[in-house]
Amino acid sequence: MEYPSKLVEQAVEEISKLPGIGKKTALRLALHMLKQPQAQTTNLSEALTNLRQNIKYCGTCHIIADTEECTCKTLSRDTSVICVVEDTPDVLAIRNTGQYNGLFHVLGGRISPMDGIGPDNVKIDSLVDRVKSDAAVKEVVLALSSTMEGDTTAFYIAKMLRDTPVKVSTIARGIPVGGELEYTDEITLARSISTRTLFSTEN
Amino acid sequence: MEYPSKLVEQAVEEISKLPGIGKKTALRLALHMLKQPQAQTTNLSEALTNLRQNIKYCGTCHIIADTEECTCKTLSRDTSVICVVEDTPDVLAIRNTGQYNGLFHVLGGRISPMDGIGPDNVKIDSLVDRVKSDAAVKEVVLALSSTMEGDTTAFYIAKMLRDTPVKVSTIARGIPVGGELEYTDEITLARSISTRTLFSTEN
Ligand SMILES: [Zn+2]
Ligand SMILES: [Zn+2]
Repeated sequence: MEYPSKLVEQAVEEISKLPGIGKKTALRLALHMLKQPQAQTTNLSEALTNLRQNIKYCGTCHIIADTEECTCKTLSRDTSVICVVEDTPDVLAIRNTGQYNGLFHVLGGRISPMDGIGPDNVKIDSLVDRVKSDAAVKEVVLALSSTMEGDTTAFYIAKMLRDTPVKVSTIARGIPVGGELEYTDEITLARSISTRTLFSTEN
Repeated sequence: MEYPSKLVEQAVEEISKLPGIGKKTALRLALHMLKQPQAQTTNLSEALTNLRQNIKYCGTCHIIADTEECTCKTLSRDTSVICVVEDTPDVLAIRNTGQYNGLFHVLGGRISPMDGIGPDNVKIDSLVDRVKSDAAVKEVVLALSSTMEGDTTAFYIAKMLRDTPVKVSTIARGIPVGGELEYTDEITLARSISTRTLFSTEN
């Protein structure tokens, strides 16, 4: 596309490096900013630079944080269980369910031999150390994607924790709530049968 | 949502002020930036600030530009026709068709009494002055949205140019190319009949 301005072109180029944002959307965003007060763009730019330069990761659970001290331990009511997730958004999603009050461990990715990501590229050693050095931990819940990479990662972690006394569990795979049986794929359906749970008549 | 970091929260807040970007997407973008080299975020921030602070508008046709001098006149092969559009993206879209090589005039909006936008809030006076002071201009093409606001704006402009010798035309409304008659709305269909053109057997 031919831009009416070098400044617009540069902004579009940088904006469209973000995932899921094409040149057309980038142009729309750039032109939108031109119609808003200058302070809005300044605030955005500063917030981004500030985020990128000053963000920290908790030294224990690797959650994104403003300090290297763990806030995860303070926020958790149950410190006997660690939920293992791939990335920080998963922590937020799980916390939002209100069904989990334990600790977290952010792997920062998943094992994917195809992409050259091995066990050493994600925080698995750190998880094993953490479990071994904290006798209070009784259970590790694997909350990973239901993909080949997620399953590989889960399998590897379970293997690494085999010598420890902790129980390793995984979140259920099954028919999504509200999902119709008819439209559920065969593999999910098979899994939901093999991992069936006792039906409760209580709420 | 409860964010793991004030820095993330601030970035999400600023990003989600952009049109069409919700908090969830904003969070995804912020976390993406954390995984990319720091320079990418710096470049983005600088490009945005630079754009917002240094952008100019052509003094004649109001297209977004890097200087106030008109590049439109240099880029046009036919300076006897002015195409009137609502905003700069429309200029790019029309240029991209390859069907138009004339001048442009960017109104910077459209008349919308409901939103308190009157004729004085868009560059209509400037268009009239331009037409009156440039004897080379023979035609004004209105390329406005086919909405009530677009039609109101077109009507107002046509009225303002009534005393000038220029021809005022409007881009065709009709069935979109590739569109089936069956699925075309009644009003568009009616319009496409009343503005029917001679069928040509040539290419
Ligand atoms: Zn922590
Ligand atoms: Zn110009």
